[in-house]
Amino acid sequence: MEKTLWKHIQQVRAQSPLVHNITNFVVMNNTANALLAVGASPIMAHAKSEVVEMVTISDSLVINIGTLDEVWSESMLLAANTASQLGKPWILDPVGAGATSYRDHILKELLREKPTVIRGNASEIIALNKSNLIKTKGVDSTSQSGEAVLAALDLHQHYGSVVCISGETDIVISGSQEIHLKNGHLLMTKVTGLGCSATALIGAFMAVITNKTEAVTAAMALIGVAGELAEKESNGPGSLQVKLLDKLYNITEAEFNNTLKFGIL
Amino acid sequence: MEKTLWKHIQQVRAQSPLVHNITNFVVMNNTANALLAVGASPIMAHAKSEVVEMVTISDSLVINIGTLDEVWSESMLLAANTASQLGKPWILDPVGAGATSYRDHILKELLREKPTVIRGNASEIIALNKSNLIKTKGVDSTSQSGEAVLAALDLHQHYGSVVCISGETDIVISGSQEIHLKNGHLLMTKVTGLGCSATALIGAFMAVITNKTEAVTAAMALIGVAGELAEKESNGPGSLQVKLLDKLYNITEAEFNNTLKFGIL
Amino acid sequence: MEKTLWKHIQQVRAQSPLVHNITNFVVMNNTANALLAVGASPIMAHAKSEVVEMVTISDSLVINIGTLDEVWSESMLLAANTASQLGKPWILDPVGAGATSYRDHILKELLREKPTVIRGNASEIIALNKSNLIKTKGVDSTSQSGEAVLAALDLHQHYGSVVCISGETDIVISGSQEIHLKNGHLLMTKVTGLGCSATALIGAFMAVITNKTEAVTAAMALIGVAGELAEKESNGPGSLQVKLLDKLYNITEAEFNNTLKFGIL
Repeated sequence: MEKTLWKHIQQVRAQSPLVHNITNFVVMNNTANALLAVGASPIMAHAKSEVVEMVTISDSLVINIGTLDEVWSESMLLAANTASQLGKPWILDPVGAGATSYRDHILKELLREKPTVIRGNASEIIALNKSNLIKTKGVDSTSQSGEAVLAALDLHQHYGSVVCISGETDIVISGSQEIHLKNGHLLMTKVTGLGCSATALIGAFMAVITNKTEAVTAAMALIGVAGELAEKESNGPGSLQVKLLDKLYNITEAEFNNTLKFGIL
Repeated sequence: MEKTLWKHIQQVRAQSPLVHNITNFVVMNNTANALLAVGASPIMAHAKSEVVEMVTISDSLVINIGTLDEVWSESMLLAANTASQLGKPWILDPVGAGATSYRDHILKELLREKPTVIRGNASEIIALNKSNLIKTKGVDSTSQSGEAVLAALDLHQHYGSVVCISGETDIVISGSQEIHLKNGHLLMTKVTGLGCSATALIGAFMAVITNKTEAVTAAMALIGVAGELAEKESNGPGSLQVKLLDKLYNITEAEFNNTLKFGIL
Repeated sequence: MEKTLWKHIQQVRAQSPLVHNITNFVVMNNTANALLAVGASPIMAHAKSEVVEMVTISDSLVINIGTLDEVWSESMLLAANTASQLGKPWILDPVGAGATSYRDHILKELLREKPTVIRGNASEIIALNKSNLIKTKGVDSTSQSGEAVLAALDLHQHYGSVVCISGETDIVISGSQEIHLKNGHLLMTKVTGLGCSATALIGAFMAVITNKTEAVTAAMALIGVAGELAEKESNGPGSLQVKLLDKLYNITEAEFNNTLKFGIL
């Protein structure tokens, strides 16, 4: 798979998929810019009166609950349901899962629409699986990372979703296979919403690449490698945010392949 | 007109007009920063309970439907109506015109309030004119750009609006005159919301310059020239976004006049 | 106090407080990034269905009414009330106070919940005090700055709030003591929302520092000094926004103490 990732990156550029985002207020600008930088076309639209049409004309849907509320959550559910009905890929970013009962309630509703991909950090994936009422097996890992992998497997089993746990190592889980990506840099956690950007990029890759696991892996590898390279030219989180967009746009095949740290368990 | 454009730029700096924006979530930060960089004072406010007062104390109004919804659209209509009643300039940015029937429905309502200026890309101007039910003549151009010019003329005829079609060449249409601006750079299309920033700058210029065509032309020329100069110092879309704001702020008369590519048809 | 400010900055980094923000759309990204840069953890959440729980798990609450509306204001009031009940520090940023009667009405309701800190520019503090119906003494200063100090004292007296008037000189008022900070740079007024970032930083410092006056002073000193240093490396407002985040993140004790301009009246 490692050798096909760059080909997938080129394919996104060539096909410029239309990615419909219902995302949070904090990251809308960055997310749109990250999508543009990798060659995709972002749409941000949330009105209940138009989400069905928007999902219909788009190639994929990204739902990020960061700043959800009672009005937006209705549109999220309607959009997810439309994507499900139409067989379009839709990606769930369960920001802040477990923080409040309202958030978990909406996530439970969203899970019913079987997201094609779920991406979150370890604690979000664990919390999301706890709101998954129909789960059958217990989780008794001692490490958070291990617990997240078990939760991801559980989510995969019940909803068929490819699950990505992002962190120091990004782990992509789809059935028996476990892909590990060790790119990125700690400074990326000091820039708001890079996880949200990663989710949006997954939306772009899922729109044009048939193999779901490869699509998720290519998107995560791209943002990890670009972030790692951008950090070398940065003086702090402000410049990292800017240089990451530059690098997503101008990264070369050699830079990508020479920096990639990829493994399959 | 060419020689008066720099004078208009200086006038915006000198008068610092208050520009009221009801715009989309993706671009609010950039738009406010672009207005500040050219010397204007931005207000972002959308509550139905205060838009009438806000329009009343402002020098111009910018309405951008990018992330419209059922609540915001009511405020947009109320604000546009107030501006019309008070004879204040108001600018319409029909983001995504034609994408959904809801969007077109709201645009039709907004057109009733006769925007002083309309700015969109070719496909938005064409779609906007299609939602203009009272149009009388058909559009049968073969090229999109030519079709957009006919649509712009149609919109101008029915609503009296100055219409700006932005693209590789920006075209400003107000009756028989057709102004062409050939500044800018392709990389600008990889930064989200620069069109929205252009619309906001038109708001600032319309607030202080009597000649509407010159106001629109000066605003579009400024962002085109600044973008073209900023691109030379950029490594990608991230740094272009930053350097454009710097250039809008520190552009000199010589830089502006030496870079400007202006023509009248 | 001057010598303890750096210690407070280190304490925020060490404790990484969770700061809940209900703020405006224009500045959400910057605000989150400013909080991350100083070592705090931002949460942005506004749904009525979850604000009570969010305030409960957070260390402090920041309410900024910049783009308030009828739905968000209900959540703001509920969150402020929750913070008051729980004895958690909450900070009010009365953006645009005095601009509309609706804004003043909501501010009057918010004042009932006795903000721990209020931060605004001179005209906002004056306008806020005018909406304070229970004030008893008149304000008859001739200078705006002097008038703002009297208004701040009035607000302090009635609500017990520490009040910060930001401007060329930032003034922190808590009873008899008046602290003056003379850092910053005029170019900071050309970047949208740096006042809002300052308010958010106050939220972070109030979460971990017992002495309220010192907490407010340390936050304002940090952003003023960082802005002043960042400006030296900037070419305009675009790069200032970026370099300020870098500097908030990597400022050293020597830089801070050598640049600080601090005085007590």
